[in-house]
Amino acid sequence: MREVFVIGTGQSDFGKTPERSAAQLGREAALEAIEDAGIRPADLQGVFSSRVFDAMVTSQSIMKDIGVARIEMVNVENACSGGATAVRSLYKDVAAGFIDIGIAIGVESMTTSPVAGKLIPPDKDDLDGQMGLTMPVLFALQARRLMETHGATPEDFAQVSVKAHDFGALNPRAQYRKRFTVEEVLGSRMIADPITLLQCCPNTDGAAAVVLASAEVAQRYSDLPIRIAGSALVSGEQDFRRPDVTSMPAGQRAAQLAYEQAGVSPSDVDVVELHDAFASEEIVHYEDLGLCERGEGVDLLRSGATSLGGRIPVNPSGGLLSLGHPLAASGVRTIADITNQLRGRAGDVQVPDARVGLAQMLGGVVNGMDVAAASVHVLTR
Amino acid sequence: MREVFVIGTGQSDFGKTPERSAAQLGREAALEAIEDAGIRPADLQGVFSSRVFDAMVTSQSIMKDIGVARIEMVNVENACSGGATAVRSLYKDVAAGFIDIGIAIGVESMTTSPVAGKLIPPDKDDLDGQMGLTMPVLFALQARRLMETHGATPEDFAQVSVKAHDFGALNPRAQYRKRFTVEEVLGSRMIADPITLLQCCPNTDGAAAVVLASAEVAQRYSDLPIRIAGSALVSGEQDFRRPDVTSMPAGQRAAQLAYEQAGVSPSDVDVVELHDAFASEEIVHYEDLGLCERGEGVDLLRSGATSLGGRIPVNPSGGLLSLGHPLAASGVRTIADITNQLRGRAGDVQVPDARVGLAQMLGGVVNGMDVAAASVHVLTR
Repeated sequence: MREVFVIGTGQSDFGKTPERSAAQLGREAALEAIEDAGIRPADLQGVFSSRVFDAMVTSQSIMKDIGVARIEMVNVENACSGGATAVRSLYKDVAAGFIDIGIAIGVESMTTSPVAGKLIPPDKDDLDGQMGLTMPVLFALQARRLMETHGATPEDFAQVSVKAHDFGALNPRAQYRKRFTVEEVLGSRMIADPITLLQCCPNTDGAAAVVLASAEVAQRYSDLPIRIAGSALVSGEQDFRRPDVTSMPAGQRAAQLAYEQAGVSPSDVDVVELHDAFASEEIVHYEDLGLCERGEGVDLLRSGATSLGGRIPVNPSGGLLSLGHPLAASGVRTIADITNQLRGRAGDVQVPDARVGLAQMLGGVVNGMDVAAASVHVLTR
Repeated sequence: MREVFVIGTGQSDFGKTPERSAAQLGREAALEAIEDAGIRPADLQGVFSSRVFDAMVTSQSIMKDIGVARIEMVNVENACSGGATAVRSLYKDVAAGFIDIGIAIGVESMTTSPVAGKLIPPDKDDLDGQMGLTMPVLFALQARRLMETHGATPEDFAQVSVKAHDFGALNPRAQYRKRFTVEEVLGSRMIADPITLLQCCPNTDGAAAVVLASAEVAQRYSDLPIRIAGSALVSGEQDFRRPDVTSMPAGQRAAQLAYEQAGVSPSDVDVVELHDAFASEEIVHYEDLGLCERGEGVDLLRSGATSLGGRIPVNPSGGLLSLGHPLAASGVRTIADITNQLRGRAGDVQVPDARVGLAQMLGGVVNGMDVAAASVHVLTR
């Protein structure tokens, strides 16, 4: 397989913008990525987009006003991993030599969706859903278990949100650029004990895009192409009702596969973007990604290692909690943000001399499975 | 790139079955394809599904009760070409060597969808939609033009539907197993002049699946693997308002690419399955696929060459008009049906000694584009 590089990134502002269509948001991100890559739209040989809610030929809707046609366009969905799946689909096409350059886009217009963010009646097959096992409840169960097994406290979970908002306050693209104290986070409305409102990601409109290219094409356009050294996408175990819910096997396996392909170990990683839809899960991901030993996630958080200026900053973008979470956009946005960290372009949240970064995203729970789609990409300078 | 073979096919009955979930329909098709291939579910290394309406981690929802997990699962959407896009995505993964065997599934539960088949207000960007340019109207404009330029008559269009129902009456999986006369077709309710109700495909629930494998794996399981000799997916031109709407450039280009890759010419093709969502378009596809010279599509139809027992039967399954059109399922089902024609397993509609077959599907119109996604697969015995 050929090496594949990110040569351009783009993003819309994240927030609530019901006046703008999904195609408009996607177009903004795509045009920024195209300009950043220094290419012309007509150079693109493939387009892979993801939109989870209300999707219909998303790539084509975005591209028609950019003047791109007559090439392969694919639209993918994988819940919160949808955007990462679009990137990986494009990555595989470039790696295998089907095409030399293409764009991956993730977009969501959640405020205009008749479905997103609404209380959707669960499938008639979905017994867990029928019993009330919605996303916040699922993660609340995991959080309660972390309190039993890891000695985690509600203050620890709140601290994840405080950290996210400390970072997000520095990100001009973030939905919420406001700092909170642990007390404020704990004092916000209870959603599913111990998860309070400020420990849940918001509903967000937004889009992100990356341009990927083969080595030969990347060298033509970029002084500092960032290599996708490892890419993995795996579905989870079939039984979420397993003895230990403080690990998510799909996320762990995806990380192992990506590390192995990249030839790096967790200790090599300088910066991480991950799925913090609910604050407490970040502690689980520390362990599943190997950023610390099993059982030491709370200690890693408390040490400040994952905060601004720490040894291994996690979610310097502000994460889903503060930057916002337009579902399918997040899996592309994390890869774009890691790319910009490795290019030294991360502004106020730059991790000094970052050389290896990791973007993780988890998507969906099908009743009986841990995670429907877990994706990990390891990027290197 | 490696050669890729179809080694198993499966399908649910097509029809209106609101009592069955999309996951159930998908599971039925998948299990039939797995059994037909003679593999165990655990042999699968990748799953690609498509569902256009109300999709959310479709692959995983289908596979959880089949006992498949811990592998890559992707969900794609490309309007009516969604299923063909799932097949092509899997095809590329096997061809490139990412995996050796996998399954592609298309499924739609249109009768239970809050969206499918309903009159959806067009996007605010979609000026054509705002003006009333819905699918039947779009194809009616094309049909009127065929009457001007090709000497086509309403009776010709009705004959396409008569032919489809003649075939569908012989297909035990078809939604409508009933023959109609030209008079009955013309006498049904007018939808968009000259298109009457019986010249429009119905709303359908259903699923289809194919198992693809590399040569080495295919030889292990199959006595008669069918090769995917050509695979193409392209988006259309940006301007539908072009001088000649009696050709659809995306479909034409996809066919050229697939023929070229397969090293066959249109005259080599023994049997075709194509997108006949509206009867009149079939005449356009005859020409775009090169089954006859430009301008001679009506003559080809009138000659009976594309009917049962003709030189080049088109839609022996009954097509979208009679077999039914569960959107994302159709692109997989056409490839499964062509496979079974080449395996000599097509029952009462078997084309004698068929050696080369073509499956075409067109998906979506974005305002200003001819077709959002056109797919053509050429299969050989």
